[in-house]
Amino acid sequence: MRIIVDAMGGDHAPEAVVDGAVRAARAYGVDITLVGRQADVARELAKHDTQGLNLDIVQASEVVAMEEHTLAVKEKKDSSLVVGMRLLRQGQGDAFASAGNSGAVMAAALFNLGRIKGIDRPALGSIYPAAPNKCILLDIGANTDCKPEFLLQFAIMGTAYAERIFGVANPRVGLVSNGEEADKGSMLVRDTYKIMQAASQGDKPLLRFVGNVEGKDLARGLADVVVTDGFTGNVMVKLTEGLVAFIFGLLKDELTGGWLNKLALLLLLPGLMLMLPGLLLLLPTIRRLAKRVSWREIGGAPLLGVDGVVIIGHGRSDARAIQSMIRQAKIAAEQGLVQRIKEGIGNG
Amino acid sequence: MRIIVDAMGGDHAPEAVVDGAVRAARAYGVDITLVGRQADVARELAKHDTQGLNLDIVQASEVVAMEEHTLAVKEKKDSSLVVGMRLLRQGQGDAFASAGNSGAVMAAALFNLGRIKGIDRPALGSIYPAAPNKCILLDIGANTDCKPEFLLQFAIMGTAYAERIFGVANPRVGLVSNGEEADKGSMLVRDTYKIMQAASQGDKPLLRFVGNVEGKDLARGLADVVVTDGFTGNVMVKLTEGLVAFIFGLLKDELTGGWLNKLALLLLLPGLMLMLPGLLLLLPTIRRLAKRVSWREIGGAPLLGVDGVVIIGHGRSDARAIQSMIRQAKIAAEQGLVQRIKEGIGNG
Repeated sequence: MRIIVDAMGGDHAPEAVVDGAVRAARAYGVDITLVGRQADVARELAKHDTQGLNLDIVQASEVVAMEEHTLAVKEKKDSSLVVGMRLLRQGQGDAFASAGNSGAVMAAALFNLGRIKGIDRPALGSIYPAAPNKCILLDIGANTDCKPEFLLQFAIMGTAYAERIFGVANPRVGLVSNGEEADKGSMLVRDTYKIMQAASQGDKPLLRFVGNVEGKDLARGLADVVVTDGFTGNVMVKLTEGLVAFIFGLLKDELTGGWLNKLALLLLLPGLMLMLPGLLLLLPTIRRLAKRVSWREIGGAPLLGVDGVVIIGHGRSDARAIQSMIRQAKIAAEQGLVQRIKEGIGNG
Repeated sequence: MRIIVDAMGGDHAPEAVVDGAVRAARAYGVDITLVGRQADVARELAKHDTQGLNLDIVQASEVVAMEEHTLAVKEKKDSSLVVGMRLLRQGQGDAFASAGNSGAVMAAALFNLGRIKGIDRPALGSIYPAAPNKCILLDIGANTDCKPEFLLQFAIMGTAYAERIFGVANPRVGLVSNGEEADKGSMLVRDTYKIMQAASQGDKPLLRFVGNVEGKDLARGLADVVVTDGFTGNVMVKLTEGLVAFIFGLLKDELTGGWLNKLALLLLLPGLMLMLPGLLLLLPTIRRLAKRVSWREIGGAPLLGVDGVVIIGHGRSDARAIQSMIRQAKIAAEQGLVQRIKEGIGNG
């Protein structure tokens, strides 16, 4: 198993990428091809103990910057993104992962790998930390304007993902709407509801549609696959990020603002000391919790519908997040995700 | 100042509604007309000390249930919703408030009060507890499919609301999108961006457009008025509700699950006792915080664009939430919100 990694992608590249790749190679026993400026990557690699690891470097002279236009990948034929995708297409690796400019990664994947036959539009998925189970929310930004058949294809791809990666048999598919009833939703949602329901019927249903899900249901784990257009999905994911930051930031600001609160926090200290044994016992739970909602542990968004395994990491990725992104890529390749999507769409 | 209140609206009507109305009458010195089944309302009213308060009952023999179809208001001409709206139209009150079936309230308002001239579609607003300031998010569900001009009108109505109710001079209007740049967004958003920008120009601009806002920016208070279509807005508001419940529920479940954690919590107790003085000092802050994010304190969603002040409360409203809903209605009437919207749209 060999993962091709864009060494130049992300806010902290190449340092964090190389660091994360070394960790992943050791933790998961994968071979890794780092694509980027040879000298820069080699210098970073030299900082680590790489004995026993299979880490190659492939030279790519150009870099697509985070803020550059998506179509820069058309010009920059020797960028790490384009070179990496080409390696994947040539079979010199099993998956490609990048924490770089996500629009550019999608464009590079589309141009170099092409779409799976039967898929009109590839979609970006997000692993959403619902309770009690995770779910995959898609599309989260690849397609702002959608047709019902695109959403049906997203559902089929999400089903493949939930089955292979989450290990859920016969995953439940929900459609994001502003009400549970079949007649709720925008025109797009109402039309999609009908074709999804039809696709759930018969001897060999394409999917298991459980109906509309509302925003409040997402975190409750009522579906394993949650389908929406890329505009709504993107707003949902970013709202979630913003809210989590807001809630914890508000708590911090309010509780540490003003001399009275500072005094109060001081008064809390002795009690806190006394609580140490209890807090230590709680630590594993708190860590498990933090792990469950942290994008660093999730590590990346799968790009579904292109003819190859592509995982897009968060631009802010540190080494830990890069490691998780590579783990994701490895699992998707191991589990034959692309082949399963082809079967789902009827050309496997 | 007289507020007309739907005594039969909400999951806990008429008990919680009458209780909340009594509280509001005392707290804010408003006169209140309770519309509903005379006997039921009178029985609830008798449970309270109403001396010195001006609380009338107007009989309405029918009730539109929470789960009934919106258009039930067409049939049920003697429902509390329809009778209440008629009283408002006749000038027998300054505002109408209901925690009932929100679709039915909107339909009743539209049929009985009509639209403000120049407004194609009334919109439902939500007061979103951003930091450091509140903002109004609209539409949150009245219109699932929108045209750019609807969104422009929402922006003008939201501007009137932020100016009069929040007391913000020259409020900032943001448009929900999946990226900050002008070329980001669905077709609807890109077209709306252009006409909003045009409306911000010239000697007497209709509004102050600050550009696209992403989901993550909402809680950061980058705009006083946040405009989106009713589908996206509804998903956003419900996602927010669900996430807050999820985060606190997860914390509770995880921290109290398993014998090890129960033991840990027990070990925390002595420390907690020692922390009491400090915790007491923090109490006002914690309460202020809880107040800021609680829908009970916010009390309701303004229906903007109909020719009268209408506030729609949460179906789950208790007495405290009803009281807040009535406070909202009073302020909107006092501040001449409807007149200000008429001026904003150019027919004042």
